[in-house]
Order: sequence, then C-alpha cells, then structure tokens
Amino acid sequence: MPLQIGVIGSDGPINESVKNLAEEIGRLVARHGMVLICGGRSGVMEAAARGAKKENGITVGVIPGNNKKEANPFCDIVIATGIGRARNLVVVNSSDVVVAISGGAGTLSEIALALAENKLVIVLKGSGGVSNLVAGKLIGDSKVVEALSPQAAIEIILKYWKY
Amino acid sequence: MPLQIGVIGSDGPINESVKNLAEEIGRLVARHGMVLICGGRSGVMEAAARGAKKENGITVGVIPGNNKKEANPFCDIVIATGIGRARNLVVVNSSDVVVAISGGAGTLSEIALALAENKLVIVLKGSGGVSNLVAGKLIGDSKVVEALSPQAAIEIILKYWKY
Amino acid sequence: MPLQIGVIGSDGPINESVKNLAEEIGRLVARHGMVLICGGRSGVMEAAARGAKKENGITVGVIPGNNKKEANPFCDIVIATGIGRARNLVVVNSSDVVVAISGGAGTLSEIALALAENKLVIVLKGSGGVSNLVAGKLIGDSKVVEALSPQAAIEIILKYWKY
Amino acid sequence: MPLQIGVIGSDGPINESVKNLAEEIGRLVARHGMVLICGGRSGVMEAAARGAKKENGITVGVIPGNNKKEANPFCDIVIATGIGRARNLVVVNSSDVVVAISGGAGTLSEIALALAENKLVIVLKGSGGVSNLVAGKLIGDSKVVEALSPQAAIEIILKYWKY
Repeated sequence: MPLQIGVIGSDGPINESVKNLAEEIGRLVARHGMVLICGGRSGVMEAAARGAKKENGITVGVIPGNNKKEANPFCDIVIATGIGRARNLVVVNSSDVVVAISGGAGTLSEIALALAENKLVIVLKGSGGVSNLVAGKLIGDSKVVEALSPQAAIEIILKYWKY
Repeated sequence: MPLQIGVIGSDGPINESVKNLAEEIGRLVARHGMVLICGGRSGVMEAAARGAKKENGITVGVIPGNNKKEANPFCDIVIATGIGRARNLVVVNSSDVVVAISGGAGTLSEIALALAENKLVIVLKGSGGVSNLVAGKLIGDSKVVEALSPQAAIEIILKYWKY
Repeated sequence: MPLQIGVIGSDGPINESVKNLAEEIGRLVARHGMVLICGGRSGVMEAAARGAKKENGITVGVIPGNNKKEANPFCDIVIATGIGRARNLVVVNSSDVVVAISGGAGTLSEIALALAENKLVIVLKGSGGVSNLVAGKLIGDSKVVEALSPQAAIEIILKYWKY
Repeated sequence: MPLQIGVIGSDGPINESVKNLAEEIGRLVARHGMVLICGGRSGVMEAAARGAKKENGITVGVIPGNNKKEANPFCDIVIATGIGRARNLVVVNSSDVVVAISGGAGTLSEIALALAENKLVIVLKGSGGVSNLVAGKLIGDSKVVEALSPQAAIEIILKYWKY
C-alpha cells in the first residue's frame, strides 16, 4: 500500500509563496507514488491537491461538513466526515507523515494531534505561522522536524520509511 | 467525480450467501466506475472490497481505530478515523448511496444515520439481519428502498443518479 | 456516583402524548436521584429535561453544535460537542441505560449505537415511531426491552442495577 | 446558567507544583459557582476536579473512551464520548473559557482547538510545557492570554464575562 502523506495548512486566502510550497509538496508526493491526504478545502489544501493532480497523483479530501460538494475540485475521493473540527483528527490519523506549511490555530491543532498520535511531523521552516512557532521544538516527548524545502521534506519522508 | 457507494454490513464471520452478495455488490460498483466506501474491517466490508478489487475498482476503508494496519488488505486508501463507532457517520456521509446487506446493531446505526442525513438507503431484501427488519419501512420521513439482488441495487443507483 | 439515564426521541414538534411521556420519564429519573442525559434540543429532549427540573433533578444536554446557547433552557450542564450527528454516540455512551420514546431516524441511530455498545435499551411501547418498530426485537445479539409506561421503564432500570 | 470552565493539562504523573496549581484552579472555579469541565482522567484533570470537590463544586469529566469507569473519582458527571482524542474538541467546545497548566501534545491540541473555536484561552505562565511555549503568542488571529497565578486567571475570567 502506498504511503499516505498529509499536507496541512490554512484554509482561505494564502500568499503566493505558501501556495507555491503547497503545490510543490503536492507534486512531489504524487511523483513518488504516495497518496495525498488533505483537509479538502481551499488555501494550502487546494494548492497541494492541485499540485498532486498535475502529476497524476491520487488525492483525498477529508472535509469537516457532511456535503461532498464542499471539497475543492482537485480531490479524487472526498471523505465527508460531518464531525466539524474533529475531522482534524481524521486527517492526521489517516496520514503516515504530516507536513505542515505556515498555518493558524487549526493547523496547530493538527500538528499537536499528530504528535499525540506519535506521527512524524515535518514543518516547512520559514513558511510562517504556526509552522515557524513549533519548528524544531520539543512538544511532550516528540520533536517537530524542520525541513528547509519541499524537496527536503520528501527526503526526510523517504529516509524515515526506508522506501 | 465518480459516485462513492457505501456498502455496509457485519464485521466478523458471515455466511457464504451474505459473503457472495457483498462480493457481487463490490464487483458491480467497480464495474460501473464507482468508488467503494466501506468500514474497512472484515466480514461484509472485506468481501465487498475484494469484489471491487477483482474488477480493478477503487476501494476506501474507513476504520474506527487510529492504525491503518487494522484495515482489510483490499482497501486502496485507508481512512483511520480514531473516533470509534462515530466512524459510522463518516462512512455514510462519504457515500452518495448506502447499500446494506444483512447486519446487526452497527449496521442499523449506519442505516439510521444515512436516513437522518437524507441519503438513499438500499437494503438487500432477504439477506437477513437488520436489512430484513427495515426493508420497505418508513423511518421518520424516509423510506428504506428494497432491492432483490445486487444487480437490482445497482440499477436503482443508476436510475437515481440519472447516470 | 448516580446513574445517568439517557432519554431519547425526536427533536422539533411532538404530540401531547409523547410530550407527556417524556416529561414523566424526566420526573421519575430525577425523583430517583438519577442524572438525566439528553440531546439538549427541543421536542422529547426538552420535555424530559423540563420534567427532571420540576423534581430538582440534574440535567445534561449533549448538543451537536459548538454553541452552548443551542441547548434548551432546562439543561444544567451543556456539553457542546461540535461533532454533528456523531454526538448521538456521546449521548448513549454517557448513559447507563437508554430510554426511547417514539422517534425517527436520529433516534433509531441512538438505539442502534446503544445496542452496539451493549447498553440496556428500553423503548416505550405504543409511543409510536421507531420505538414501535424495534420494541421487543432482537437486533444482532441484543433484545430491545419494552416498557408499557414511564413507571415500568424506571422499574426495569432499578431492577437491572439492583439499586 | 453558570459558566463552564475547562481546565486542561497532562494526564499521568505530574509534579507537585503543577498539581497544586491545578487543584487551586479547581478550588477557585468552584468557589465562584462555576462548573469545572475537564478531560476526566488523571494528572491535571484529577487535581483540578479534586480541588473543585473540596469546595463542593460541580465537576464534569469528558473522557475519550466509552466506559464511565475510566473517569477519575472526582467527576460528578461523566461524559463518555467513545471518540478517542476527538474528545479534546468536546472539552473545549463545552467550556466558556479554557485554562491550561503545563501540558504536552494533547494539551496543545486543546489550546489550538479552543483558539480555532474563538474561545478565550488562558495559560498559567511558568507552569512549563506547552503552556510556556504559547504564552502571550499570537496564533492565527488570537492571542493566548497569560496569567501569573490561578487567582489571576480567575480574575481574567470574571472580567471577561463581566460577572
């Protein structure tokens, strides 16, 4: 079974630099034959899914609401949870590794839930937001791993899973 | 985007007749280019996923636990919810139509949640269990639709969605 | 710790007979020093909570949304789950026994989830809706217990827990 | 309806200083006629609940599992969610204000979920763990408020709600 990589970050308007990072992560995830897991909405989630589709990857959007139509158009499969923000837990539990780009409170909750579930969490250093806040930090017993670029993030994933 | 069809029924040991019905539904779902959504465990879920894979369909297992390894081996994508039985809501919300085969209390909860969310629910008449209990019944404002065979269930789905 | 009794049934407008049954169950729960658990909204939930408050009982409303103000005014404590219909699982897991009065698809999902979690489920026979549908039925391995009146339901609870 | 105050922090063994802070917060919550909401387990949750009971307060434990017996003995009411770590969302949504003491990844997820739900979040400065990490920080659009003592935290709550 291919690895499932969660890419997390803000909904809504994001700046060009964050959008490019998200799209590049999506491309790399797909190019390595991994499945992209995201929150299915706009912003970072949409950019990552768009990137993955440009490389013919498989994309899954795990949305908070109960209506599949809420998902962005780059999700091949839509998981409509209907459980509101508790869907953040479903995103991280479904991911073998979580990669965070910038982000606010919602993204921080996903990072923290992923750490609590003993997942490898990689943040793109310098991408801003909560990713900067927790980069390299020890939270409980787990360290948040930093990557300086999408390419570096993928290399950490490949090494971690000894592909 | 292809339709996502939820196939629901019991976990654990199931009889041959129920297993064959589940596998046949899985095959038909895949043959019509639809995505199979199931609860990712054994019994009806595994039989339906196996059927879909025999026809090269796409299968999604939405499991209650937080460990992807709990899923049966016929799931292409595993959604590890970590929310216990509340995953039943995720199964039905992610399905455009729900098809039930036999089943016990867990299956009945999925049928009821699907009706509450205004989904079309089809039960295989004569498959036993809770499917027999609710076949053709009016529950709240919604009628549970009966199908006499997997083929008939698919025809109802195709007609409903005017494919 | 006192028993926590879940009283379940429809939201929205309910007929006088159902309202009276719900209020009477609420009164009896409180009079026996038990805590009332309900879904926190209108209809049966509100009537049961009102009944319990008339007897100075303690009432808990477990609501689907994330805003405590959604609860009916007879809830002492409001659990705002924010998980939509998945809150039905929280209602039944928090209840030592579940008593159903009439009801539609949502109520049926609670009955089924409670049976799946091995709870004693009592339905008021003759109250209509899904309570009538499942009264006395074997679902999976569990029988749905019937009571002919609120008083009879309480006696079943007391006997079950050897108070 | 009284305010419901969530007190959050680590499960398991905690040091004396953290235990004393938690117990003192519990006492103050109860003394001001507020209801204590906690995660129902050991560590900070148990210390806060014990403090509240010493002042005859009302305590609610919202646990991840489906068995009420998992709760610590100082919870008057146990909400057994059965949804695993997604119960963290239920804790914060049920709280008018959240007060964090030290903590690890689980606590950080509650802080972040509370901010995402636009709750006032107060952390005890100097209590260690993730409370130190986020004290005074801007996360998304929300600032994490610092308090230097349990008494200061209560005063912030009283002022915020113009009691």
